[in-house]
Amino acid sequence: MDYRQAGVDIEAGNEVVRRIRSLARGTFTPGVLSEIGSFGGLFQLNAAAVTDPVLVASADGVGTKLRVAFMTRVHHTIGRDLVNHCVNDILVQGAEPLFFLDYLATGRLNPEVALQIVQGLADGCRDNGCALLGGETAEMPGFYADGEYDVAGFIVGAVSRARLIDGKTIAPGDVLIGVPSSGLHTNGYSLARRIAFEVAGLRPDSVVPELGTTIGEALMVPHRSYLQLLRPQLTGGVIKGMAHITGGGVTDNLPRILPPGMHARVERRAWTPPALFGWLQARGNVPVEDMYRTFNMGIGLIIACARDAAAAVIEGLAAAGEPDAVRVGEIRAGGEGVEYA
Amino acid sequence: MDYRQAGVDIEAGNEVVRRIRSLARGTFTPGVLSEIGSFGGLFQLNAAAVTDPVLVASADGVGTKLRVAFMTRVHHTIGRDLVNHCVNDILVQGAEPLFFLDYLATGRLNPEVALQIVQGLADGCRDNGCALLGGETAEMPGFYADGEYDVAGFIVGAVSRARLIDGKTIAPGDVLIGVPSSGLHTNGYSLARRIAFEVAGLRPDSVVPELGTTIGEALMVPHRSYLQLLRPQLTGGVIKGMAHITGGGVTDNLPRILPPGMHARVERRAWTPPALFGWLQARGNVPVEDMYRTFNMGIGLIIACARDAAAAVIEGLAAAGEPDAVRVGEIRAGGEGVEYA
Repeated sequence: MDYRQAGVDIEAGNEVVRRIRSLARGTFTPGVLSEIGSFGGLFQLNAAAVTDPVLVASADGVGTKLRVAFMTRVHHTIGRDLVNHCVNDILVQGAEPLFFLDYLATGRLNPEVALQIVQGLADGCRDNGCALLGGETAEMPGFYADGEYDVAGFIVGAVSRARLIDGKTIAPGDVLIGVPSSGLHTNGYSLARRIAFEVAGLRPDSVVPELGTTIGEALMVPHRSYLQLLRPQLTGGVIKGMAHITGGGVTDNLPRILPPGMHARVERRAWTPPALFGWLQARGNVPVEDMYRTFNMGIGLIIACARDAAAAVIEGLAAAGEPDAVRVGEIRAGGEGVEYA
Repeated sequence: MDYRQAGVDIEAGNEVVRRIRSLARGTFTPGVLSEIGSFGGLFQLNAAAVTDPVLVASADGVGTKLRVAFMTRVHHTIGRDLVNHCVNDILVQGAEPLFFLDYLATGRLNPEVALQIVQGLADGCRDNGCALLGGETAEMPGFYADGEYDVAGFIVGAVSRARLIDGKTIAPGDVLIGVPSSGLHTNGYSLARRIAFEVAGLRPDSVVPELGTTIGEALMVPHRSYLQLLRPQLTGGVIKGMAHITGGGVTDNLPRILPPGMHARVERRAWTPPALFGWLQARGNVPVEDMYRTFNMGIGLIIACARDAAAAVIEGLAAAGEPDAVRVGEIRAGGEGVEYA
């Protein structure tokens, strides 16, 4: 008995690893010192030219959006979902990404699918100026069903300590600015899938007239990166805090940046959630409170700044290519969490 | 319909997250700036006091050793397996660990199991002087079977560029020193499980007389960290290269540090593999070549150094607590890879 009989094909794995290395090499930035294949990936911090650097790190997955990928056989955007999610998680503290590593676990490795996933990771990394520095591809027979996989991402970025954005100066009277999401991003998929495929009984290729597309396409729109949009404003000291609206929605994520003794008042009428959210709410008969605690509702990032800075922040976002950022609320004294109006 | 009906229990998840934060806080080193719960974990690099720092990063999983954990219901050592595996992967390039993040994915979150896993991660981090800086706990209903999970780890360390250990100065005539493993570590479990539980028909609590213990206990021995043992010798410039013997065994891992135009000659008689390896080979009727390409065979780390430095390296390991490191081979001109004698 050898390892191949036990379900692990080392040769096929090695060939995939070789092609993965080639994709990763295309993302290398000047800071990268190592070839993929050394035990650890090497990144020379000086190349990032950050003074008094604080490293900012985050780990994330794609959640059960993967199941929609399996249903639609669309795997090339999953990597972008994962990278962009990670990029946003460190961006909200002011950090530029340096490098990214992935963990890809499968039952039996399907080389085509693995390479589509890594192509997406490489695309996402390159778009964000971030090196795909390494990763682990694990073949775990009997662990994942045939054709299924899980993928996790790890990102490290850097920010000068003086430029760290941590919400500590947020004060009553400050304004909250919402930046549009591109869709569900990577959250709420357990509920969305149940509504779409069980309650509504759709197939992935069913066209939903209200959406003007198939439900599969609507659910697979990639998570957006806010890095390009925010980069011009990261060093100005105007942005006091940012919340990435992920699992838990505005309700659970916005409070993560609020100092004690204040709450966020969010005016739901300030923006119109895209049709997908309304469709999910109606078809699933989901209470509105649960919608705002599960989905991003069309706002993927919320920025806190002083009242007199809000117009400039919104203009800056427009100049960077996002004309639809809007004031969605403000900070008020007392209490905690989010109060909706 | 709400998210809990869709299989995701946000409240239970939040309670686990709160307890995880408390465990993680116990690992914090002076470099940590953030509470777990901010979007990214913050680490101030200056606190590491490394001049001209190179960051060394690695991602890993535990592989199907997890299935033995499920069978034996032993979850508290899995975290240590994962941390130690990651620590060794960057140690072989000379790096001290700075921080670690985990990705823990489950079907339905079992809070007790999740906390046992994170306790192991925290123990492993503390033992290695490494901060558990953050992580992602993903509840993915319908994705993992009840009671099952996958866990990945991500580590970042630092080394002064002048102290980087990369194997580039390895030359013919250099000596290879093997440092004992503690067991299978985290590799070869697909084959080992098949031999133990299918071919030999054992149950996890079956006693194997040759091993003096149950097969479950033998297979669950945690992956060893070599950091404490090697730390005194990292800065001396004597160690030219180190290979962590993981998936692919000596056969696939030792060549990763060899410069072109030379090969490693390894004398199998130089050490006696622990009984578990012989038992697996005999019961599985595994060709010897496959054994050395699948399992670590009792050697978890191989050090390359100049011939006249070997005695001092072995003495240094003994002084640090490992009396059983031995010369296992040497570097020879020509060819590539490993030649066994």
